[in-house]
Amino acid sequence: MFYLESFHVKTTKEEILDITRNVGEIVSKSGAKNGLAVVYTPHTTASVIINENEKGLVEDIRETLAKIVPRSAGYKHDRIDNNAHSHIKAVIVGNSRVIPLFDKKLALGTWEHIFLTDFDPPRTRTVNVLIFGEL
Amino acid sequence: MFYLESFHVKTTKEEILDITRNVGEIVSKSGAKNGLAVVYTPHTTASVIINENEKGLVEDIRETLAKIVPRSAGYKHDRIDNNAHSHIKAVIVGNSRVIPLFDKKLALGTWEHIFLTDFDPPRTRTVNVLIFGEL
Amino acid sequence: MFYLESFHVKTTKEEILDITRNVGEIVSKSGAKNGLAVVYTPHTTASVIINENEKGLVEDIRETLAKIVPRSAGYKHDRIDNNAHSHIKAVIVGNSRVIPLFDKKLALGTWEHIFLTDFDPPRTRTVNVLIFGEL
Repeated sequence: MFYLESFHVKTTKEEILDITRNVGEIVSKSGAKNGLAVVYTPHTTASVIINENEKGLVEDIRETLAKIVPRSAGYKHDRIDNNAHSHIKAVIVGNSRVIPLFDKKLALGTWEHIFLTDFDPPRTRTVNVLIFGEL
Repeated sequence: MFYLESFHVKTTKEEILDITRNVGEIVSKSGAKNGLAVVYTPHTTASVIINENEKGLVEDIRETLAKIVPRSAGYKHDRIDNNAHSHIKAVIVGNSRVIPLFDKKLALGTWEHIFLTDFDPPRTRTVNVLIFGEL
Repeated sequence: MFYLESFHVKTTKEEILDITRNVGEIVSKSGAKNGLAVVYTPHTTASVIINENEKGLVEDIRETLAKIVPRSAGYKHDRIDNNAHSHIKAVIVGNSRVIPLFDKKLALGTWEHIFLTDFDPPRTRTVNVLIFGEL
C-alpha cells in the first residue's frame, strides 16, 4: 500500500521545528504495519533532519550551520534573492529523510526526533509524507 | 511495481548538471502513478542534489563546498589518488536523493530541480533511477 | 515483500566501520531480487555513509568532519552532555542511506562500500536494514 499526506508549518524565524508528532499521526492513519516513511519538504531553502530534541543542541545545530555556510559571503545568487546561504545549507543537509516503520510505528531510536529546519523564514512550509508498507 | 533504468552523463569540469528531465522521462516510461523515485549515482566522488536551477546559485554551491572541503589540505588519500576532497564532499552531500511521485510525475516543488554534481571531472557518470509504485 | 533485520557493532574509538558484508548478508537472506535496501542507524551521534574503503581516505573523512564541526566550540548542549559536535556531524551527514538492489545484490558501484561512522564512541550501535522488493 501507498499513502500520501501533506501538512504545513508556519515559521517565524530560522528555527528547527519538531514534526515527529505530525509524521506519527500520518503513519497511524495510513494503517501500515511494516514499511517505510519518506518525509520530504519540497522547498530549496529548508531541510528535514533527525536528531535529539534538546533546546541547547537545536541552537547549536543552527549556529554551526551558520558558521559553515555564512550569510553574505559574496554569493552570486544574492544579487537576485538574498538567500544563497539558505539554499546551500539545504543542499548539504538534504530535503528529506527516510524512516523504517515497525508494528505501525516510526522506528525511531530513543533520542530521535524529526525536525523541519527553515533556513529562510518566515514562510509556510509544506511537508509531504509518503508511506509504503504492508497492512 | 519496480522499474529500473540508468543513464549516463559526461562531465568536462567540476559541474552541477540538471538531470531533472532525464529522471522525469524514466518516471513516465515506468508507468508508475504514485510511488517513489530513488536517484542514485554509484560513484564515490559524485553526488545527487535537489535545489534551484539558477546559474549564480549553482556556482555558489560549488564554491562553498570547495571552501568547506579545500583541495590539497594534506589528505592521506592524496598520496594514492589526488582527489580526497572530492570523496569527502560526496560523503557530506550524499550519493542519492528520494523523490515522491504523484499522478505519474515527480512531486518536486516549484523551484526544485535534480542535479548530478561531479566533484572529480572529467568523467562519464552513471545515474541509476529506481521507481517503486502502483500503476 | 518487506524484510527487516538489525545487527549491532561495537566501537572503541571514533571510527568508520565497513558494514558492507553485514548488509549484503541481510539482502541475501531476504531473498529480494530487485528492490531497495534502507540502511538506518537509530542514533543521534552516528551516521551511515557510502564511499571508498581506503585506509587513508577514511582518516581524511574523519579528520575533515572534525575540522568542519570542531569539538568544544562553546556548544550549549555541552553543558548537559559533552558531545554536541557528534550530534551536529550526524545531522549534516545523515543517519541513513538507500541502495538499489539488482539481481539479488546491492547495486553498489566498483568503489562503493557502506560504513557506520560513530562520532561518540565507545558504544554499541544498532543498524536496521529494511529490504523492499520483489522475489
